[in-house]
Amino acid sequence: MRLERMIGVLPRGKKNSICDVEGVLVAHVTVDEAEAHTGVTAIVPAPGDLFDQKLVAAVSVLNGFGKSAGLIQVEELGTLESPIVLTNTLSVGTALTALNKYMLEQNATIADTDATVNCVVGECNDGRINDIRGMHVTEEHVMEALHTVSDTFEEGAVGAGRGMVCFGLKGGIGSASRTLLIDGKNYTVGALVLSNYGGKGKLRFDGQLLPFSDKEEDKGSIMIIIATDIPLSSRQLKRVAKRSSMALGRTGSIMGHGSGDIAIAFSTANRISQKAKKAIRAFPILHEKMIDRVFDATVESVEEAIYSSLWHAEPMISRSGRRIASLQEVLDD
Amino acid sequence: MRLERMIGVLPRGKKNSICDVEGVLVAHVTVDEAEAHTGVTAIVPAPGDLFDQKLVAAVSVLNGFGKSAGLIQVEELGTLESPIVLTNTLSVGTALTALNKYMLEQNATIADTDATVNCVVGECNDGRINDIRGMHVTEEHVMEALHTVSDTFEEGAVGAGRGMVCFGLKGGIGSASRTLLIDGKNYTVGALVLSNYGGKGKLRFDGQLLPFSDKEEDKGSIMIIIATDIPLSSRQLKRVAKRSSMALGRTGSIMGHGSGDIAIAFSTANRISQKAKKAIRAFPILHEKMIDRVFDATVESVEEAIYSSLWHAEPMISRSGRRIASLQEVLDD
Amino acid sequence: MRLERMIGVLPRGKKNSICDVEGVLVAHVTVDEAEAHTGVTAIVPAPGDLFDQKLVAAVSVLNGFGKSAGLIQVEELGTLESPIVLTNTLSVGTALTALNKYMLEQNATIADTDATVNCVVGECNDGRINDIRGMHVTEEHVMEALHTVSDTFEEGAVGAGRGMVCFGLKGGIGSASRTLLIDGKNYTVGALVLSNYGGKGKLRFDGQLLPFSDKEEDKGSIMIIIATDIPLSSRQLKRVAKRSSMALGRTGSIMGHGSGDIAIAFSTANRISQKAKKAIRAFPILHEKMIDRVFDATVESVEEAIYSSLWHAEPMISRSGRRIASLQEVLDD
Amino acid sequence: MRLERMIGVLPRGKKNSICDVEGVLVAHVTVDEAEAHTGVTAIVPAPGDLFDQKLVAAVSVLNGFGKSAGLIQVEELGTLESPIVLTNTLSVGTALTALNKYMLEQNATIADTDATVNCVVGECNDGRINDIRGMHVTEEHVMEALHTVSDTFEEGAVGAGRGMVCFGLKGGIGSASRTLLIDGKNYTVGALVLSNYGGKGKLRFDGQLLPFSDKEEDKGSIMIIIATDIPLSSRQLKRVAKRSSMALGRTGSIMGHGSGDIAIAFSTANRISQKAKKAIRAFPILHEKMIDRVFDATVESVEEAIYSSLWHAEPMISRSGRRIASLQEVLDD
Repeated sequence: MRLERMIGVLPRGKKNSICDVEGVLVAHVTVDEAEAHTGVTAIVPAPGDLFDQKLVAAVSVLNGFGKSAGLIQVEELGTLESPIVLTNTLSVGTALTALNKYMLEQNATIADTDATVNCVVGECNDGRINDIRGMHVTEEHVMEALHTVSDTFEEGAVGAGRGMVCFGLKGGIGSASRTLLIDGKNYTVGALVLSNYGGKGKLRFDGQLLPFSDKEEDKGSIMIIIATDIPLSSRQLKRVAKRSSMALGRTGSIMGHGSGDIAIAFSTANRISQKAKKAIRAFPILHEKMIDRVFDATVESVEEAIYSSLWHAEPMISRSGRRIASLQEVLDD
Repeated sequence: MRLERMIGVLPRGKKNSICDVEGVLVAHVTVDEAEAHTGVTAIVPAPGDLFDQKLVAAVSVLNGFGKSAGLIQVEELGTLESPIVLTNTLSVGTALTALNKYMLEQNATIADTDATVNCVVGECNDGRINDIRGMHVTEEHVMEALHTVSDTFEEGAVGAGRGMVCFGLKGGIGSASRTLLIDGKNYTVGALVLSNYGGKGKLRFDGQLLPFSDKEEDKGSIMIIIATDIPLSSRQLKRVAKRSSMALGRTGSIMGHGSGDIAIAFSTANRISQKAKKAIRAFPILHEKMIDRVFDATVESVEEAIYSSLWHAEPMISRSGRRIASLQEVLDD
Repeated sequence: MRLERMIGVLPRGKKNSICDVEGVLVAHVTVDEAEAHTGVTAIVPAPGDLFDQKLVAAVSVLNGFGKSAGLIQVEELGTLESPIVLTNTLSVGTALTALNKYMLEQNATIADTDATVNCVVGECNDGRINDIRGMHVTEEHVMEALHTVSDTFEEGAVGAGRGMVCFGLKGGIGSASRTLLIDGKNYTVGALVLSNYGGKGKLRFDGQLLPFSDKEEDKGSIMIIIATDIPLSSRQLKRVAKRSSMALGRTGSIMGHGSGDIAIAFSTANRISQKAKKAIRAFPILHEKMIDRVFDATVESVEEAIYSSLWHAEPMISRSGRRIASLQEVLDD
Repeated sequence: MRLERMIGVLPRGKKNSICDVEGVLVAHVTVDEAEAHTGVTAIVPAPGDLFDQKLVAAVSVLNGFGKSAGLIQVEELGTLESPIVLTNTLSVGTALTALNKYMLEQNATIADTDATVNCVVGECNDGRINDIRGMHVTEEHVMEALHTVSDTFEEGAVGAGRGMVCFGLKGGIGSASRTLLIDGKNYTVGALVLSNYGGKGKLRFDGQLLPFSDKEEDKGSIMIIIATDIPLSSRQLKRVAKRSSMALGRTGSIMGHGSGDIAIAFSTANRISQKAKKAIRAFPILHEKMIDRVFDATVESVEEAIYSSLWHAEPMISRSGRRIASLQEVLDD
């Protein structure tokens, strides 16, 4: 089932998912037993050896109440050299260790003849539903997610999204994409979100405030992953990542104090080889005057991905016994 | 006349203006002759000697396609030590010189026995309506604005707002405020904007897209000034300033490439004396756990100030002879 | 044994160590068996419940080729709410998990009725000496370090410093401190470094280039921890942290591309209580005009801590069989 | 006369000046009458229409106690589209207005059919020697400097450097360069500084502390301009600009509180055309693994440029009647 209401005006990609950007693969491992309602979502940004063939990337920390790993080096070097793993806040260490091991498996030069690897892990706090203090995510869960990625994946209360709550409704994983024609060629912008933010009663659905009667603080977080095959520099990707704040504003967010709102953007267009023979190499880059079109596609994709995360999530019961309703239920009322 | 539709839920201040924050004074000088349709808006943030009794302040550069002066030092030191002058882009130099002279008049120690002064000037490009290349703003205009500030001021196509265009409609100066009860005492957050951004046909008015048929690039800029009497640190004020992006998102902005979107926030609560006898002094500061309420008040104030700038502006004719309609006309249709 | 040459002119603290700042405690666990030459250094910044009584803190990422965890939130909120653990690059995940568990033990509200906790882990790559791919640091090592902290600790090739190399010499842990009289009261600035940076043949010892004949790239990293009991805001602490770059420059660094040069500064003076009854509270803060004295003390402490790390380290053999000499040997020649 | 002591090991360019980077031109206008001892230094970074053929550039604000204009947009867009003008702090407005006029003369589309122009002005406070409150720099001075640039220029107490003081000695303009062989081709890194920082008695000359007996606060500022013909991205140029802090550290700076320490770096290798027909174009860029060599060249050039500014400056008398000695006098003693 698909979110029927399209946000904005740009054409969607075929799957309306981050995997419309060729080479991007995703998998979930959902942990759902006893008190544990959590999981892992792995995003492999491109095929091949990511350490030897790095991607251009950038980060925008919209609100830094968050515990993601690996962002500092992406900021400094403008490259992504590992998959991105999303999980709950207290499992970042476990995910990081597993992701390090995965990368060591893939490439024997890391931390031997070459530098160490910078692994990227994002997180939100699923403690309203999940027994997060129990740290139920294992290295095996992470490895399983990394080894089962494909170009189709579920949305809603799955993987890292299992225990997430967004605007008082059940949140989780959502995705959407938009396509653009540049110099006569088709390009794609895709977004994947892990939604866990927003005050109850503050959700705006495509501009309209939804009729909740009770209110609650804006808490939680959102991780936003933006992929594109447009050749952008890391500086440009940082500008793109920052535009996800416009989508947040439209959904009713105030970027609440306690919300780790973090966007990571990468382009699959230029791979930076570590074995380059020449010191200087030419890279195609989009002219800055065209970048508003990428901004448009980003804002639409992120906004729709957020609604999609809510639309696909089923109701769940919180640790305190409260029922977390779904968006579909609310829209049905 | 007042904007009838209130944005959000928090109570407005008495004047629904940045001047509801006690001590904040504003004045316009409008230049409107022949090809010149431009001006100056001066904001005096607090009474007394601003250089000797600095205010705590912060800046958030949402999109840095802008030519404001003085922001670097506000960022480093977290203080504001001059009025803020708004004008057109090519008149920043003139405004800066005049503001420097104004400060030298006020305080004889500047650049003599004490350091030089950091003057803050903000700008937007009013070149669609104004002959901006003619540089029609003079030092006298700036001085006149600085010397005639009061706690009431007009909104719309006045002062620095004279030639501004926003979402293809006539933009300019707008203001709004919200009040908060903290520890049993009333506090105020007020915003003043100089609106000159947004793609035609993209304006959302309190969530609803307005029915324009033709489209245009998101260009121009917005200057956002946020004042409060809540005792906040510069780090907190930076977080507050950053929240104006949420208001931009709600109005339909994508923070367009060519839009200098800059927010400056200051608090009148703690004055930093340059003649302090003791090296260490205690400053009241709001607990971070309460800051979401300030974020709410900021987002509401900035969003409403933007609509108010449009609501109060009358239609004008652009340099190319195109009629720039007003929001009221559009809402009447 | 003590480094005999004092850097600068300010008086040293009693121990000439970061533990001269009252309440700061440190411990090492050194792992030294077969191929494993690595370890953990734990810094507990203050007594009591760090989550409930947070410290004011800041980070300066001098060069972001690094994989530290927890820095984003320190930057956003200006607080430190956990001990700081230093270890090798590929053990950050393990250290993070252990530190999370340590904090959950200390405070039952974390991730239950209160937010999750932000744990800070710093790292350098000890792969020239240590079998870093083997990931020999365990959660137990981290826990042991955290539970055995005291106000005296060894310097040199111990704890996280076991396998580090600095300017081609054996590096590791070093510390130093300086005292200042402010408003008639004594205050202290202390630094602890994990030194692993610098090109061979580029070391300047208090200004003088040491007579190495062979050269090598500037690689590796340095973690710099700065503690003080002076009441500073997070903005001021960020300025303080940034001054450690001046010490790096003096030692001969170029902040090499592959060097994660990261400084974390905290003050023990103001604790931010999470159970505050009032929303607004007064905090003593140093006047900015006095801050040059803190900068002086910081630059001297960090520079001397670096030399001290080299001075106290014994020679070791690298994984490739190369002998990594000690500074004392070189000075003896 | 040339500074005889070479800093570092890399080969100097032919002139040992920023003008060794082909296309970089410089001129001074010195104002030296009655109480006025100030001036203007203009740097034209490349030939041709700078607005239509922008350069790649970046800024590093080492310490933001400064009033430079135009830095925000360089940071956002990574481009330089005007000459750089250096002058005294209170003349930034005048210089900005003149530079705007110069650019409007050069290009008729600015602020008409195209966007406004971002002009870059840097400053230091020459108030110890110059009657800075008198604002003796005129638009004509700026225009004259811009229209008389050439590839040779004086160093020392000339142009913007006329009234500057550095480490208690007479400072001003200095320059130096280094050359690098990359992929078999020669490239150049050149630096120009306006030196006005440093505490008296703290100067280290190539590592050695000079024997002053009296001490004084580290005040003033330094503007650092770095030019290269190596094809670098704006992210890489930001890293390069940041390395000038290493040179500051070596000379004895603590990046004093009141010192506006700002570095601007640009590359002449890639010009960004505003009239590009295709949206996507390929740009040569240096591989990051080679960037340490650029860092080395930068640190050496900036350090030597600082000494050169001191070396070439003649003694002057301050406004208070104190004699400001020259470095040559001190070295002679």
